[in-house]
Amino acid sequence: MPRLILVRHGQSQWNLENRFTGWWDVGLTEKGEAEARAAGTLLKDKGMLPDVAFTSFQTRAIKTLHLALEAAGILWIPETKDWRLNERHYGGLTGLDKAETAAKHGDDQVKIWRRSFDIPPPVLESGSEFDLGADSRYAGIPIPNTESLKDTIARVLPYYEGSIVPHLKAGATVLVAAHGNSLRALVKHLSNISDDEITGLEIPTGQPIVYDLDDDLGVQDRYYLSER
Amino acid sequence: MPRLILVRHGQSQWNLENRFTGWWDVGLTEKGEAEARAAGTLLKDKGMLPDVAFTSFQTRAIKTLHLALEAAGILWIPETKDWRLNERHYGGLTGLDKAETAAKHGDDQVKIWRRSFDIPPPVLESGSEFDLGADSRYAGIPIPNTESLKDTIARVLPYYEGSIVPHLKAGATVLVAAHGNSLRALVKHLSNISDDEITGLEIPTGQPIVYDLDDDLGVQDRYYLSER
Repeated sequence: MPRLILVRHGQSQWNLENRFTGWWDVGLTEKGEAEARAAGTLLKDKGMLPDVAFTSFQTRAIKTLHLALEAAGILWIPETKDWRLNERHYGGLTGLDKAETAAKHGDDQVKIWRRSFDIPPPVLESGSEFDLGADSRYAGIPIPNTESLKDTIARVLPYYEGSIVPHLKAGATVLVAAHGNSLRALVKHLSNISDDEITGLEIPTGQPIVYDLDDDLGVQDRYYLSER
Repeated sequence: MPRLILVRHGQSQWNLENRFTGWWDVGLTEKGEAEARAAGTLLKDKGMLPDVAFTSFQTRAIKTLHLALEAAGILWIPETKDWRLNERHYGGLTGLDKAETAAKHGDDQVKIWRRSFDIPPPVLESGSEFDLGADSRYAGIPIPNTESLKDTIARVLPYYEGSIVPHLKAGATVLVAAHGNSLRALVKHLSNISDDEITGLEIPTGQPIVYDLDDDLGVQDRYYLSER
């Protein structure tokens, strides 16, 4: 039976500082590392070991994957890293904390950007300290300068269909270690959630979410692994 | 210019205890983890960053790779894990320490097994505590029950030719994080070392060995990165 397991990376340094992170590459905190290990231990204890894993190009997700796989005793399974599983790009908000954002743009505007499905934040200025244009990991990749959730979904879903679905169709258990918004894209698709609702859906960090699928990838069951 | 960088995994628990390890999956010691991080820092400091990485199915090599990539700031590069880069399978010697081996087989016999190119140790008995037949990672894989260095080379080189050489021919810098004997296979091939000599060649742990290659993969230069 095909099975998809989603894990959002553990707490990062900028989660802790309440900064918009997006594509900026921030490490996990000690708490974040512990969350990742706990997710792996849970996979092992529940006997729900993935056959193959996917993650983003961002250290906090890759490290979450590695710590979880090590705790589960399966560091050897194949893993693929792809930028299309990256977090939503927060454009000009990148690096700002809650107070800075409110001072610069006003609380109401920030709420619109956070909660809107298709309105992106202002673009990240070229040459800003958070400009990734010179980062070799994104060479040849169409780096966005801002994204709405809709934009994020528009790059996550084709990747899911092209690279992850073939494993599911072959009956595999697939683990995706990624980010709040790239996982929202998958949850919206699988659980058929509306544009309005998805922006308010919080995906908890380090909590494996399991989708049991049938052969046509219809959802048979969906649950937090910690509740089984 | 194609470039191949070899790194032997850092100290493992059984290196420390002087036990034959082979395919048994033993973790790194703290010293081994530090060696791996130092290798990554060196890659970064020397500006010699790989584009793509390969490792074995064994935790000590995979973890060496991950710690090195993280220290180098390139955890995001593609990585492939393959059993054909595993350590030499030590057969019935697996798990024995130096004293146990000498008591069981005699020092002279042990020296023959260690230093012979083509004489394998006795086979690992099926059902022994080190039998990997039930390990899902090796499902569908022809697990050896013992190997000479010649046998190890016979599985490493075809993998190198089929999976690593295409990256080198495309001009990439390739990192291989693996084991004393799987790396001996590559060093023997690249440096054209005789059967007799290769068995005595020690590959130091955590020390990146660099091969600068020409377009036909002829060796232009070979050096320890720490000496540049």
